[in-house]
Amino acid sequence: MKIFIDWISQPSRAVVTYCLIENIPHEIIQVRVNALEHRKPEYIQINPSAKVPAISDRLENGEIFNLFESHAIMRYLADRYNKFKLYPKDNIQLRALINSYLDWHHNNTRKCGAYLFDLYSSGVLGIKPKNNIETLYKEIEIILKFIDQIWLQEGKNKFIGNNIQLTIADISCYCEVSQMIIDSYDFKNKTPNLYNWMKRIEQIPEIQQTHQILFKLAPKMSQNKIKPNL
Amino acid sequence: MKIFIDWISQPSRAVVTYCLIENIPHEIIQVRVNALEHRKPEYIQINPSAKVPAISDRLENGEIFNLFESHAIMRYLADRYNKFKLYPKDNIQLRALINSYLDWHHNNTRKCGAYLFDLYSSGVLGIKPKNNIETLYKEIEIILKFIDQIWLQEGKNKFIGNNIQLTIADISCYCEVSQMIIDSYDFKNKTPNLYNWMKRIEQIPEIQQTHQILFKLAPKMSQNKIKPNL
Repeated sequence: MKIFIDWISQPSRAVVTYCLIENIPHEIIQVRVNALEHRKPEYIQINPSAKVPAISDRLENGEIFNLFESHAIMRYLADRYNKFKLYPKDNIQLRALINSYLDWHHNNTRKCGAYLFDLYSSGVLGIKPKNNIETLYKEIEIILKFIDQIWLQEGKNKFIGNNIQLTIADISCYCEVSQMIIDSYDFKNKTPNLYNWMKRIEQIPEIQQTHQILFKLAPKMSQNKIKPNL
Repeated sequence: MKIFIDWISQPSRAVVTYCLIENIPHEIIQVRVNALEHRKPEYIQINPSAKVPAISDRLENGEIFNLFESHAIMRYLADRYNKFKLYPKDNIQLRALINSYLDWHHNNTRKCGAYLFDLYSSGVLGIKPKNNIETLYKEIEIILKFIDQIWLQEGKNKFIGNNIQLTIADISCYCEVSQMIIDSYDFKNKTPNLYNWMKRIEQIPEIQQTHQILFKLAPKMSQNKIKPNL
């Protein structure tokens, strides 16, 4: 099974972290977004939405099955390889809470990426920020507080949406919020429960492994900050 | 099992349509968004994200299980009531394609709602449109074309993402795109495969039943169109 990723992409890191924790055999193929490799015709054949990650899986009958959207990929790999440690199937309420977080993620947590792109990459790439940065920042503060207070129940939940176990919801959430270190977001004082959760998640060796490049790039990227009013 | 909905909400209509097709017993409780009932403290207890739909399910042990996010609700009800007609579990590739569409939906198809709100409701409510309407319209044209060409494979797929059967992906997609009738979107000429699919989906009695209010309101709402440049 081939995974097409860019290490700078949050959902790419989530899928690779998932495969490492669940011991799912995979071959990583890098698709460099900055070099516009995600828009090449041969990649569009695999993922028509021109985003990373995607997978290409050879089935038993020889057919090639392509799939995009990181959450769908993780759910599929659970079924395909019979691995339910991070996406349990017997506790249907727990699975429902994981799905609830994963669906909520798209229009909430995911905004961290849009914010950081506008603030740190748009200037370098010579693109006008797509969003009003102040408005987006205020939204992100509300979103991170919601994770702190609701998904982590003010610290009573050890994991996203539950107090039972680490799941793909934690993996997806961590890969997105961890990026806010580029902006030196003050998790410790603003969202202490989220901060404590992040510290716990960072202990996971597979998370360390997939975030090496982000942690290395973060100080460099933070130098490219544009003035929000530009 | 109680479902909290507003008939004007696309994801609410999706969950009710799903329950009707799968014969899942439910009690509908209306939460009128225009009357701000979704922000009342008693509803926030059920759904802290202050949106519709949500469900409140009494479990065998007497506990109450609350859940929000329409796709997570449909997936949960499939497990809870052992109903896999619209979300098959034995064909894991088909299930993966359904999930891929459902995840893609959030940041794509769902924009129809934002566009229609800005264009037809913001003026009535005295709110400044949140988005640049022209930009959003262009995005929606690309999104609807993507559904037409990729999810429906230019008509080779009878259903969203597959040619095998109707699924929750069709239900969710239809509830969102059907709203574009308020804007008299020319599906027939711009996206003929999507148009043909819509005509087929509209034959489903449960879809007819849950869209009565939309079909009745659409002509009235379309009169409230604001000038995009305002």
